[in-house]
This record gives sequence, C-alpha cells and structure tokens, in this order.
Amino acid sequence: MKALVYHGPGKNAWEDVPDPTIVESSDAIVRVDTTTICGTDLHILKGDVPAVQEGRILGHEGVGTITAVGNAVQSLAVGDRVIISCIKSCGHCVNCKTGLYSHCLGDEGASGTGWVFGHLIDGTQAEYVRVPYAENSLHKLPEGVSDEQGVMLSDILPTGFEIGVQYGRVKPGDAVAVIGAGPVGLAAIATAGLYGAGTIIAVDLDENRLEQARLFGATDAVVSGAADWKEQVLALTDGAGVDVAIEAVGIPETFSMALDVVRPGGNVANVGVHGKSVELHLENLWIQNINISMGLVNTNTTPMLLKLVAQHRIPAEKLATHRFSFDQILDAYDTFSRAAETKALKVVISRV
Amino acid sequence: MKALVYHGPGKNAWEDVPDPTIVESSDAIVRVDTTTICGTDLHILKGDVPAVQEGRILGHEGVGTITAVGNAVQSLAVGDRVIISCIKSCGHCVNCKTGLYSHCLGDEGASGTGWVFGHLIDGTQAEYVRVPYAENSLHKLPEGVSDEQGVMLSDILPTGFEIGVQYGRVKPGDAVAVIGAGPVGLAAIATAGLYGAGTIIAVDLDENRLEQARLFGATDAVVSGAADWKEQVLALTDGAGVDVAIEAVGIPETFSMALDVVRPGGNVANVGVHGKSVELHLENLWIQNINISMGLVNTNTTPMLLKLVAQHRIPAEKLATHRFSFDQILDAYDTFSRAAETKALKVVISRV
Repeated sequence: MKALVYHGPGKNAWEDVPDPTIVESSDAIVRVDTTTICGTDLHILKGDVPAVQEGRILGHEGVGTITAVGNAVQSLAVGDRVIISCIKSCGHCVNCKTGLYSHCLGDEGASGTGWVFGHLIDGTQAEYVRVPYAENSLHKLPEGVSDEQGVMLSDILPTGFEIGVQYGRVKPGDAVAVIGAGPVGLAAIATAGLYGAGTIIAVDLDENRLEQARLFGATDAVVSGAADWKEQVLALTDGAGVDVAIEAVGIPETFSMALDVVRPGGNVANVGVHGKSVELHLENLWIQNINISMGLVNTNTTPMLLKLVAQHRIPAEKLATHRFSFDQILDAYDTFSRAAETKALKVVISRV
Repeated sequence: MKALVYHGPGKNAWEDVPDPTIVESSDAIVRVDTTTICGTDLHILKGDVPAVQEGRILGHEGVGTITAVGNAVQSLAVGDRVIISCIKSCGHCVNCKTGLYSHCLGDEGASGTGWVFGHLIDGTQAEYVRVPYAENSLHKLPEGVSDEQGVMLSDILPTGFEIGVQYGRVKPGDAVAVIGAGPVGLAAIATAGLYGAGTIIAVDLDENRLEQARLFGATDAVVSGAADWKEQVLALTDGAGVDVAIEAVGIPETFSMALDVVRPGGNVANVGVHGKSVELHLENLWIQNINISMGLVNTNTTPMLLKLVAQHRIPAEKLATHRFSFDQILDAYDTFSRAAETKALKVVISRV
C-alpha cells in the first residue's frame, strides 16, 4: 500500500510500504477512506516530537471501512464504516475504567498514553491502518454522517469539547473566551453552547478566522492584535472578566492572555500543545480562586458528539475547507502549513 | 481599649487605641475573647503586604461576645458568643450569591476581596472589633464548643478544607499528599477524610510536625529532606502518583513537589500564600490531564465544619499548642515566629 512516511525532521514521502496485518486478536484493519492533518503532525515534521521514529507512518485521524478483524472482535465486522479515534483505549486498565483513556495503560504502542497512532505505532495517513483495541478505538458511523463530518470526530471535536469546554467547567450563562480560533478553538466554540454558555468570545490575530468563528457560534469576536483587546473582552463581561478562558494555541503569550481575562473564581482551560514552560504568577494568582486545567483528549464523549453531528446540532462539515486525494497529500501538507495565507481550517484527504 | 497595632515593617505594639463603634446598620461590635496569629500576620510584619497601612490593628481570627449591634441586625444579639470569620461577605453581591465570598463586592474595607480584617480595616488582635456585615461574617458558637476550638474555624479549618480538599476534588479512596504540615496543612489532613480519602500522606521537613500529622489523620508520613522522598510517596501509591497533591507552604519548591507526585488525571490544590512566581512546565504538563487550583477561602463551609467540631469529628482543639493572655501578645508573636524551635502550631491569645 501507499502511506505518508516520516523520514526525520523536514522529510516525509508518500511511498510504498507493506500492508498492515492483524497482530492481536483485538485488532482491526481499516481501509482509510478519509484522513486529515493535525497541527501536531507539523510539530512532528519539525522534529519537535522525538518519540516519533524515522519510518513511522503519520496521522491520527481518519474514517474508513473495516477489511479484517481479529478473533476477539465481536461488535464490529468487515464492511463497517468507522471513525478511528485518535486515542487507543484497552478499556480495562485502571485509567480506562475512570474514562481517562488519554493515559490508557494497555501496552499497544506504549503503556501510559492513549495517543499512539502516527506517534508510537503507524498512523492513518495511509491506505490501510491496523487499529489496536478495535472495539474501543473505533466508532461505527451511522447513515447520514459523511466521511468529512466523521473525521472531525477523530480528534478536534472531542478535544475542543472535553479539554476546553468540560475541563473549563462551562455552565449555563457563562462568558467564555476562546483564545485562538484554529480548528480546535472552533471546536470549543461550536460545543460551548452544549453547557449553556451565554457569551462566546473568539479571540484571534486573523480576521478571517474570527469571521469563521461566528459561523460556529461565537457571539463576539476580538482581534488580538488590537492594543485594547483585553479591554474589549472585559467590556463584553461588564468588566468582570470571563468565567472560562480556553487557550487553544500553545504558546506562553496566549496562555498569559487567558489568565489576563479570566474573572476571580473562573477557569482557564489549556487546550494548546506547548513546547515551552510558562511563568505562572502565583504571587498574584493564589488569591484569585482560579482553576487551570490541561490535558490530552480522552475521546469518551465521541459517541455523544457523533449523535449531535448526526442531528445537525454541530456543524462539523464546516471545518473542512480544502480537499485532496491521497496522491496529493504533500500538497495538502503544504496548504495546511500555510493556513494563514490559504485560509485552511481542516484539509481533507480522501481515496478517489 | 488595647490592641496590637502595626507601625511599619518589623514594628508592632500592644497599645491604647479608641474603642470601635457601630458605623453601618449591619455592623456588630464584638468583645474579643480569644484570638490567634496567622502566618499571614508574620508576612505583614515583614512588610510583604503593602496594602496594610501603619496604624492598622492586625488579626483576622477570633471568637468573642457581641456587645452592640446595628439597627439592621436581626439574627444576632448582645451577649451572643460568635466566631469571627476571616472573610467578610455582604451576602447580596453577584460573587456572594455564588458562594465566592473571597471576592465579595461589598464595599466595606474594599470591594472585590473578602479579606479585610487586619488588612484593610482594623482586625481581631484587640479587645474589641467592629464586624461589618455581621449576620454573614459571624457564626454563633453552640454550647459545648470552646473558644479554642472556635477560633480554628475563623480561617485555618475552612481554608484547609475548601482550598485544599474541596478545590482538590478529593473523592472516595483517593491518595492525598499534603506538602507542608503546618496549621493549614493539618487542617487539610484533618478534613480529607470527609470526602473519603483512603491514603493521606503528610510531607514535611520537620519530624515533629509529621508526628502531629498522624494525630490529625495522616496515614503515612514522609520526611521531605530525604533524598528519596518522592520515591517514598510514589511507593505508597503503587508507583502511580497521588490523586490529589495539596501544597500548603507557599514557595516555588513545594509547588514543584506537588507537581512531582501527582498522577496523570490528578489535582494539585495550591493552598500556600506565594510571594514569587513559579515556572510551570507546560511543555510536559499539557498532556498530563492535571488540574491546578488555588484561592482565598470563602468560609462558606464554616457552619458545616462547626457542626463537625461540635460532634468531635474534627479535633480542632489539638491545633492549640501555646496559650497567652492579651498583654503577652508580643511573646505569642515571638513563639509563633520560631515555630520550628518552639513546636508551635497555633498560639491562642485570650482575655483573662
């Protein structure tokens, strides 16, 4: 088969590799019909994730069709259309039993992390992929949900919802600021209303993304390049600050922005993947009664979110802005890596 | 009357001052029968809290007897024995209505903070004190609860419970590490069992304090000066790390220790009052699904904790280690400021 293979920093290629096969009895083999690229894949390509070895097939998002299942797989069958979750979960370790799939102790890929595809085992930017713990890591796609909608449920929709909205403890009437209106920030914006957020403020440097944000449910938009961006956010909350500030970029400046606009008693939910430490001003913050959360998605809300996508309650399809075939995957990487210029949100790559 | 007056860094005196009088109709005047000294008072004396002006009477903890009430006070009467909460709450601002008394917007002392006694208005280390918003800031002391027990409910018991145990989201069976077994750390240890903590690990440099910690409910004790202190904590949790790490010191090193021993998916509850910023290693932590909380006590659990003290379910009286009369208050400061040497937990100062 063909797959997108990582060959060290700055080097990747769409090339021939062996087909995957069933290894464990709980595995499935999935023919990938649709995949996409995540900001994390760009980090890997820059060499920022040294755990990814040369020769690794990248990608942790996908929708496909099952072509083989192991002997232990009972609830899935060849021919089923499925969403591939970005997180593997054995389902029976102490962490999985509390829904903490992000730290699954099952030993496929590595014990202690749920993120293995395109990281510690071969991923989804390929014609076929082996999926461990198939009954937990795959979700059947109902009729009426497209591949393009489904692939947004592999990672970004549950990440924005679980790590932004749920960890941020959004509650009815809350004012929520989302710092960074990229795909995951938009996913948080699109799902903040599920817990009754009253005001949803998108904050971004890019006016195009702020326009997009309104399509996903933002009630207000603030250009973060403006000298008075903070005053604009505070003015939207009668000066009090937001109840929840969701950081969806992953740099010290945006983490600091989230702390700047949260009210006493509020929550900062860090969703961004960070590469550097930040200075936390506990000498001012200890008395502020704020809460700071962070984490890797568990994907335990994927079935619920899938239902809402099927009911047209979450506009997942609007996240797809550019389309490519598998043999154009390097073009897709190029378009996605120049998102400010190309206005790409998610690039969708499909078999023809 | 006599009171302990702050005269700038390093200077305080027990001296004559005018008696307090009713100013607002919601005030009460309380004759202070018992007060104590908090670590925060030592910070003020060092000049670390510049908002405290010269001439201010210090102290935010006390038990006393009402000698006068304003016209609007209905539920309290002259002669009532009361606990003076360290936090004032108007009861009707938007923050008080959600139980966030720590950020009460009522304008007595200052709008936006609940901590006013011995900070922005005159405090409790005095023969008499004016208490604003008396019906919310005072709690009637039932028969059978002593002044010494009651004074532990002004600040340290609710602080350890609300900011350590509740903000730390302790749940049944949890392993909890408390870094720092001073009075507030001991209050967290004494109340962690209310949410069913299974293992309560006291961590401190001082072996005397670790012995005390066992009397308050610690199941295990680890000397933090030991080179393998971290391994000792992890060994008590089968290597996984604690579910909740409570920081009760207030320096960067102990904050870092809390992060060192918390498990993925766990909570770090900062209780310590910090004077410096800390480096937060988000580049490692973003993927750990941990939660960091912090804050000033709300004291909205004081009535519940008072009931448990009355039922002998919380050994508040064991926190009192040294006793002084009002005219010995400077000796009490001396004993408390040399706690490592004197083995003081709380020093109790009472009228004779």
